[in-house]
Amino acid sequence: RRTDSPWREAIAVLLAGAVVATFAGELVRDTWAFRLRLWRHRWPDLLFAVPATLSLGAGSPRGAATLVALRLLSRELIDLVAWRPARPVLQALLQRPLPLLCLSFLLTIAVGTLGLMFPAATRDGTGAPFLVALFTATSASCVTGLAVVDTGSYFSSFGHWVILGLIQVGGLGIMTLTTTLALAFRSQLSATTRGAMREILEEETVQGFQKLLYSMSLITVTLEVLGALALYPAMALAPDGRALAASERVFYALFHAVSAFCNAGFGLYPDNLTRFVDHPSVNLTVIALITLGGLGFPVVTSLLDCGPWKERGLRGAWRALPVHSRVVLLTSAALAVGGALAWLVLEWNHSLAGLSLGQRLWASLFQSVSLRTAGFNSVDLAKLGTPMLLLCLVLMFIGGSPGGTAGGVKTTTVAVLAFTFRALLRNRSEVEVMGRSVPPATVYRACAVTLISFGLLFGLAFLLFAAEPHLPFRDLLFEAVSAFGTVGLSTGVTPQLSAAGKLVVCAQMFVGRLGPFTLALALGLSKARASYSYPSTKIVVG
Amino acid sequence: RRTDSPWREAIAVLLAGAVVATFAGELVRDTWAFRLRLWRHRWPDLLFAVPATLSLGAGSPRGAATLVALRLLSRELIDLVAWRPARPVLQALLQRPLPLLCLSFLLTIAVGTLGLMFPAATRDGTGAPFLVALFTATSASCVTGLAVVDTGSYFSSFGHWVILGLIQVGGLGIMTLTTTLALAFRSQLSATTRGAMREILEEETVQGFQKLLYSMSLITVTLEVLGALALYPAMALAPDGRALAASERVFYALFHAVSAFCNAGFGLYPDNLTRFVDHPSVNLTVIALITLGGLGFPVVTSLLDCGPWKERGLRGAWRALPVHSRVVLLTSAALAVGGALAWLVLEWNHSLAGLSLGQRLWASLFQSVSLRTAGFNSVDLAKLGTPMLLLCLVLMFIGGSPGGTAGGVKTTTVAVLAFTFRALLRNRSEVEVMGRSVPPATVYRACAVTLISFGLLFGLAFLLFAAEPHLPFRDLLFEAVSAFGTVGLSTGVTPQLSAAGKLVVCAQMFVGRLGPFTLALALGLSKARASYSYPSTKIVVG
Ligand SMILES: [K+]
Ligand SMILES: [K+]
Repeated sequence: RRTDSPWREAIAVLLAGAVVATFAGELVRDTWAFRLRLWRHRWPDLLFAVPATLSLGAGSPRGAATLVALRLLSRELIDLVAWRPARPVLQALLQRPLPLLCLSFLLTIAVGTLGLMFPAATRDGTGAPFLVALFTATSASCVTGLAVVDTGSYFSSFGHWVILGLIQVGGLGIMTLTTTLALAFRSQLSATTRGAMREILEEETVQGFQKLLYSMSLITVTLEVLGALALYPAMALAPDGRALAASERVFYALFHAVSAFCNAGFGLYPDNLTRFVDHPSVNLTVIALITLGGLGFPVVTSLLDCGPWKERGLRGAWRALPVHSRVVLLTSAALAVGGALAWLVLEWNHSLAGLSLGQRLWASLFQSVSLRTAGFNSVDLAKLGTPMLLLCLVLMFIGGSPGGTAGGVKTTTVAVLAFTFRALLRNRSEVEVMGRSVPPATVYRACAVTLISFGLLFGLAFLLFAAEPHLPFRDLLFEAVSAFGTVGLSTGVTPQLSAAGKLVVCAQMFVGRLGPFTLALALGLSKARASYSYPSTKIVVG
Repeated sequence: RRTDSPWREAIAVLLAGAVVATFAGELVRDTWAFRLRLWRHRWPDLLFAVPATLSLGAGSPRGAATLVALRLLSRELIDLVAWRPARPVLQALLQRPLPLLCLSFLLTIAVGTLGLMFPAATRDGTGAPFLVALFTATSASCVTGLAVVDTGSYFSSFGHWVILGLIQVGGLGIMTLTTTLALAFRSQLSATTRGAMREILEEETVQGFQKLLYSMSLITVTLEVLGALALYPAMALAPDGRALAASERVFYALFHAVSAFCNAGFGLYPDNLTRFVDHPSVNLTVIALITLGGLGFPVVTSLLDCGPWKERGLRGAWRALPVHSRVVLLTSAALAVGGALAWLVLEWNHSLAGLSLGQRLWASLFQSVSLRTAGFNSVDLAKLGTPMLLLCLVLMFIGGSPGGTAGGVKTTTVAVLAFTFRALLRNRSEVEVMGRSVPPATVYRACAVTLISFGLLFGLAFLLFAAEPHLPFRDLLFEAVSAFGTVGLSTGVTPQLSAAGKLVVCAQMFVGRLGPFTLALALGLSKARASYSYPSTKIVVG
């Protein structure tokens, strides 16, 4: 249905040529100047250049051009942020984070809505109606993954690119902003005077933000490209069974890799990933991407910091990890394993019915990892049994870890609550975790984030029930929690929602995306903050 | 269907005679000895003697005998507790409160189950099957009010007495035990050494318990008899429409009064109180009894302590009330008014459909007061709209106030959480309420009680869903929260539960009855308690 026209080929070759030329030029310049250590910063180019060259060699200039364009775009983005005149904007963002956080997300959604209403965005050439466009743009920007239409067949190639862009901007945006603000917030807390705070905010934070955005973009793009490479062999067939062209295969692989790393859960197949239920490489790749995206940037960088592994061995390296990372890793592992076992046992005769043992094992693990925030499904969720549905509600509400693309109240919040419970049972006056004490303010915040999130979820669920008197209760409840946790799983009622229902779900996705985090931030960023003096360990909640 | 046989008349007259003789004898003795101040303790006798005499005069010796027997029973009960040899038992109870609390409730349920399995307990003369008896006994002992059969028509007069006894024992039991343990716990906390604690436990607590049980029984019986008197005129017709005999009317009035004060929600009419939807005296009486029973003993006694009202006026008296009482009163009032407004607006075309404006207003107020823990209904809950159903879940989970017969996580717990949220928003390091600070341990406990209650509720709901794959999700969820909050409202699925489902609901009622309180207690009663030093105000949570 799509042919590689001559002018498209030309543009592709031109783009590929541009990046190769830039790369070669800088290579020569750097070598000439003996600035060999700069090579360290060239490996992202290499990362794109190698598959691009291979793609070109395989006769797919579009695939190569796609990769090259992506690389140029990401470099421009990074340069833009590093650009001096951009600093005041960043500063403003970091000084009044809450309204600007909301506004930037609303702006992204607005742009995305307009983009999807373009005639070229849908396959029938009429453009998506306002509500469909708004819903899809919100769902993509908030990396939720709920869809009122079949993403693959309804939208055109252009529409898919818009969605991919929204997922990437939304995912990277929330990741960067939450991490920066959490770090800024943390450094502010350790400063004791207002003057010192202001200084940190204006100098260190902005520079820190630029460095952070750079390394985050790098890690994100690297992992997504690696993921796309791993997914490429599996993405051979279109939803309708015909073979995909090489450039389409690249796009399919890239789309699913980005969607997985950003925990967006959007897929191009109408049955999501059900056809790959026991496909090892798809399962492993998607699980790995979801996990890396969901662990949060601070944890991923602490893991990438390989130093301790070589010096101290596995046990020493584990102890050298920050408490935050260890809490995140342990909690995530426990939730993933527990969820998989529960899914296997409870769903044996429901969503796993008729599958082989191997498929059941793969599907259980995949669903357990996916359901907390990613929202992919490799089995049909309409068949979900009620006991597992109830567990799903809990896991979706918990979500992933802070500083990543995950939603929910976050694993650390739940971990702090668990540690608080242990302390209460032992009647300790301090909440202890791994030999450190958790400050009371963190405990309060964990409680507040959890309980207020409950409140928000309830209020919005209430509106959804009011808007949809005729849809089944359990499906609506699942939908509400899924939207609030930016999970995107559904038992299938999303397309049946009324206009009011769609708007409520949009609100749920938006509030769920920004709610728990801004809540945790608002609870710590008020005026009197200098009255606290925080000792001991740092765990980011919310 | 029931006739006053000659021998029953004889027993009735004998009993009435006994109490009149005792009363007269003691009256003469006291007057003779000029111990006129003892008269203060005689007014309960008077309270029973006057209606008993009136009842005898109206030609209903059974009614009179009922009142007299009740008075004798309550006096014996109080004497038993005041009896010296009973002290070691009490001491043991207060030293290892948790297992004994559970055991005493299990024992009550076991006795009740046996009682209801008696052939004479059911109207058909075969006795209730084990599961029905167990369910009804658990529901009555835990003052929940869920019923798998129609209480009025299924059980015989004897069965009704057994249920009434279980409600009274369960209600008074939980009220006395929670208040005593909370007080004991509080006095232990203010003691700084283990030695002092032991002393308080052995001397003051046991004596305090006896005094408490005495005054509680007195207040309970007084309010129940007053309530029965107020309900008597309305209880003119049996469920089948025939006129009730005077003795039956007395029993109907008493049964509903006890059920209301104990927040049990059991009724003798198949449609609960629906026929009284706009009956002013029934509405007002039941609302008053529910409220007094649900506010908790500490609040009721602080209100009965009239001194400040005379000296300082209304405003001064309000300020003279303990913080705990003021928090309970404000929270309860806010929840009642808010709930009534919500019910009126949201249910206008659902459960209130077809009613007049007056009926709608009465029903909204009644349901709002009733649904947090009492569980009476004056409208058909099968017609409940989903938005209000969702609000009901919240209100049922919150429940009433500590130290009473109410269930749920308690109003004070929610109030402490709200105050904590306010403190967080203002970034105060101390949680303040009405010019006092709430100790951090109380805040932790409020969070822990709420979150663990959520956990327990979820776990048990999970089992219920597993046991009942075919019943509607929303009805089962409502049932689970209703049982856990010992509310007893139902959308009508209770009789349809399978055997496994009934057992799970029994467990829910039991855990809901003892859970939040024992949790709050366990969180404070562990060994290392002396490491805390508690300042400031006292708010009982859980
Ligand atoms: K998602
Ligand atoms: K009840």
